[in-house]
Amino acid sequence: MAARSALVAELRSSASRSVDAGVFAARARQLLGQEGVLTDGAQRAPFERDYHGRSGRALAVLLPANTPQVAAVLQLCGECCVAAVAQSGNTGLVGASIPDESGQQALISLRRLDTIGPLDAANRSITLGGGVRMSHLRAHLAADGFWFPFDIAADPCVGGMIASNTGGSHLMRYGDVRGAVLGLEAVLADGTIVNSLKSLRKDNSGFDCKQLFIGSGGALGVITGAVLQVQRRPLARVSALLVPPTHADIPELLSWLERRYGDLLISFEGMSGEAIRCAYRELPALRRCFSADEVPDYAVLIELASSGEFQAAALAGDLRTAAQKMIELSLAREVLTDDESAFWALRDAIPQALMKSPRVMTFDVAFARSALPPFRMAVKRLLETRYPGIRLADFGHFADGGDHLTVLVPDDCARAYPPLKLMRLRVELYDLVAEHGGSFSAEHGIGPLNESAYRRYMPPEIRRLHASIKSLLDPAARLGRQAAAP
Amino acid sequence: MAARSALVAELRSSASRSVDAGVFAARARQLLGQEGVLTDGAQRAPFERDYHGRSGRALAVLLPANTPQVAAVLQLCGECCVAAVAQSGNTGLVGASIPDESGQQALISLRRLDTIGPLDAANRSITLGGGVRMSHLRAHLAADGFWFPFDIAADPCVGGMIASNTGGSHLMRYGDVRGAVLGLEAVLADGTIVNSLKSLRKDNSGFDCKQLFIGSGGALGVITGAVLQVQRRPLARVSALLVPPTHADIPELLSWLERRYGDLLISFEGMSGEAIRCAYRELPALRRCFSADEVPDYAVLIELASSGEFQAAALAGDLRTAAQKMIELSLAREVLTDDESAFWALRDAIPQALMKSPRVMTFDVAFARSALPPFRMAVKRLLETRYPGIRLADFGHFADGGDHLTVLVPDDCARAYPPLKLMRLRVELYDLVAEHGGSFSAEHGIGPLNESAYRRYMPPEIRRLHASIKSLLDPAARLGRQAAAP
Repeated sequence: MAARSALVAELRSSASRSVDAGVFAARARQLLGQEGVLTDGAQRAPFERDYHGRSGRALAVLLPANTPQVAAVLQLCGECCVAAVAQSGNTGLVGASIPDESGQQALISLRRLDTIGPLDAANRSITLGGGVRMSHLRAHLAADGFWFPFDIAADPCVGGMIASNTGGSHLMRYGDVRGAVLGLEAVLADGTIVNSLKSLRKDNSGFDCKQLFIGSGGALGVITGAVLQVQRRPLARVSALLVPPTHADIPELLSWLERRYGDLLISFEGMSGEAIRCAYRELPALRRCFSADEVPDYAVLIELASSGEFQAAALAGDLRTAAQKMIELSLAREVLTDDESAFWALRDAIPQALMKSPRVMTFDVAFARSALPPFRMAVKRLLETRYPGIRLADFGHFADGGDHLTVLVPDDCARAYPPLKLMRLRVELYDLVAEHGGSFSAEHGIGPLNESAYRRYMPPEIRRLHASIKSLLDPAARLGRQAAAP
Repeated sequence: MAARSALVAELRSSASRSVDAGVFAARARQLLGQEGVLTDGAQRAPFERDYHGRSGRALAVLLPANTPQVAAVLQLCGECCVAAVAQSGNTGLVGASIPDESGQQALISLRRLDTIGPLDAANRSITLGGGVRMSHLRAHLAADGFWFPFDIAADPCVGGMIASNTGGSHLMRYGDVRGAVLGLEAVLADGTIVNSLKSLRKDNSGFDCKQLFIGSGGALGVITGAVLQVQRRPLARVSALLVPPTHADIPELLSWLERRYGDLLISFEGMSGEAIRCAYRELPALRRCFSADEVPDYAVLIELASSGEFQAAALAGDLRTAAQKMIELSLAREVLTDDESAFWALRDAIPQALMKSPRVMTFDVAFARSALPPFRMAVKRLLETRYPGIRLADFGHFADGGDHLTVLVPDDCARAYPPLKLMRLRVELYDLVAEHGGSFSAEHGIGPLNESAYRRYMPPEIRRLHASIKSLLDPAARLGRQAAAP
């Protein structure tokens, strides 16, 4: 083992040697052609800046056009001791899709791996390159009556969705992306192509190594293609906006709806009053579901959908009957069923509106559903007693235990909270997540922005397991931004 | 790397040294107490014989009562250079749940890890020991209106179901066991306890190492506990037995039913006429759905279920309307809707009946749904042209691409097929599976009975990946019957 550790240490230190950018680009052009390598600052810039406006600097932006080219550039990176960050849609939220500021990391964009393979309608599956945009996939599927049910605010690509094991607002019904991946192709750091592009719902012929890459944030291999299971497009979709008596009553409301609608309940989203008010404040053009003085403490947006003809037509009417029942049973104080598009416009506006706030701190955490109300109570208590004035403006996918925990520091108390105090609050909130059995990263993976939480909360034996698998598959720690995390 | 390889080789060779059974048992009794170690032949026997009557011989049967005891016995095995086979329900079909005949492998039974933790109704989840029987779990859940929807013929335990990533007849709707595992606890070969017993539907805080153990056949760690997601118990379940015009028409029939019923279609099972005839022949008491001279070439058993009150009552009536429609549209030649219990009795009788046949060869393979009819045609052609007289008696979970491929050698042509010729047929059938993009082990995992298929069909780069992860987590190859497979 000692010999291996020494080898790994040597490989890692060699990876940090600096490389001549011109030589590297010239060799990359031999592999990818002129159009496959961007070194000019202006051309690199859109790849170097992420969704949240953070930016890094790449040694070069590499645009392989197929999987063997991905393998070839990874081999080149190995020979030149260059680390590489894979990027597909560049919509990640933890800083893992852009290189650091050193100018020494290659950026491998999957943008040209955008082949949409034939749809196998009988199998409800489709083969896709890692660079296919969700919006393109959805448009392609819609023509044949199919649907990929992972609705998230951004428009990511296949590779990144799989690397971060995305959920979205229908996870409660359709599971996470992991469950939709029937086959996968990935390239290891040494250029080995692991092709498991099968269209199988069942395959237990040896342990399922594609699972290693799903949710790995690209740190164990670059995901170049996948076979995804798709769903039939719903024939009816109806939504309602509910106001529960209190946040603590929501699990009972959810159970009642599950009993009534079973699998037809596909969304159950929570929105705090503070988040709703922020959306109305920051986006004045937004159509209002509640008048300014009637925004509730918390609201729940539900969606029912049927992909079967049987009773699809009856769904909307039944929801109105159910609305009455929920009021009678005191499961809800108010149920809005008209103007559905305004409900979703509000839900979709919240993340943007919160990001416009000058002082905002966001987290993407998840719990057992039953732990959400006690967690939220604990957060409120913490803010009231130790951080007066700071407001809880959370929202999220309640039914899968997800909470986009967000706190806002209003102008009038900004001075009371210098950066150091806010950093302490960040740690105290993460501590509460851990105390309530939660995950500090529900969907966003690990990147520079939450690496410290990983070190604080992940049990040491699991960190060691991560580190040993990482060093097995990528001994020089050459792949991904979470490379050094363990 | 050379140093590591030498170390692995040395560890592996030391694992095969023989150990004094008395000394080993005495040390094990210090850890587990008198009742935790069985050495007497008669007491060992039920653990040493599997579901299909194959048997091995254990150095000792160890019955740890909790996870730290599992860790302690694995450490003991390490110190004594003893290999260990974990066994939970002992219902596996590939010989992976019993030790070999050497008398040198310890058998670790999970039978005493049978704690059923509290049900979290709001989260629809429950924490379980690895030795909890499915029948006990089901009875426990039924009292609260919940259901674990993995219906298979046998009565396995939690650990084994997860280790073999079971599917069963509702996979088309509920996915495989992997998707139901919210949390997992496993013990590595060196005794490290990896505790990830969380109740989370979303957790992407570093790659998800519990996925390594799911479907690993126990070769990477012993699964001692899990948190499983459960479903609401269906309020209505109705079945029908359909006769499609031909096998090739089944994908269209399936699509039609998916369009009509969406998620309410939870089973879509195929049964060949030959399998049905075999059931009637071998089990004369079985209630008949078809008269002897009217058994069709192929039949499909479907099940609709609703766990929501909305739709539940209307389901049975609608299925009768649909039955008419399917006949009108020539999607089916015949649709039986009365006497549902007889349909399932037939389906459940088929595997038993086939095993009673004197000369039977079985496989558990899976495909894209669309590949099932061409595969079956190819098998029929192969049998007709090269193996006349041998009959195809397959059945399986059509909607998830599964086929329990079975061939029978009737008495009247038994002499024409000596063992060597049947071995050739076995290889030719496996070759056809590979040609049609299929898996040679859909649900049963890898064990002594199908290791040769693993070596023949698994691509070398994936075998290398398996081997390197195996040697990372279990360098002395001490765990499981598939230990040596890569």
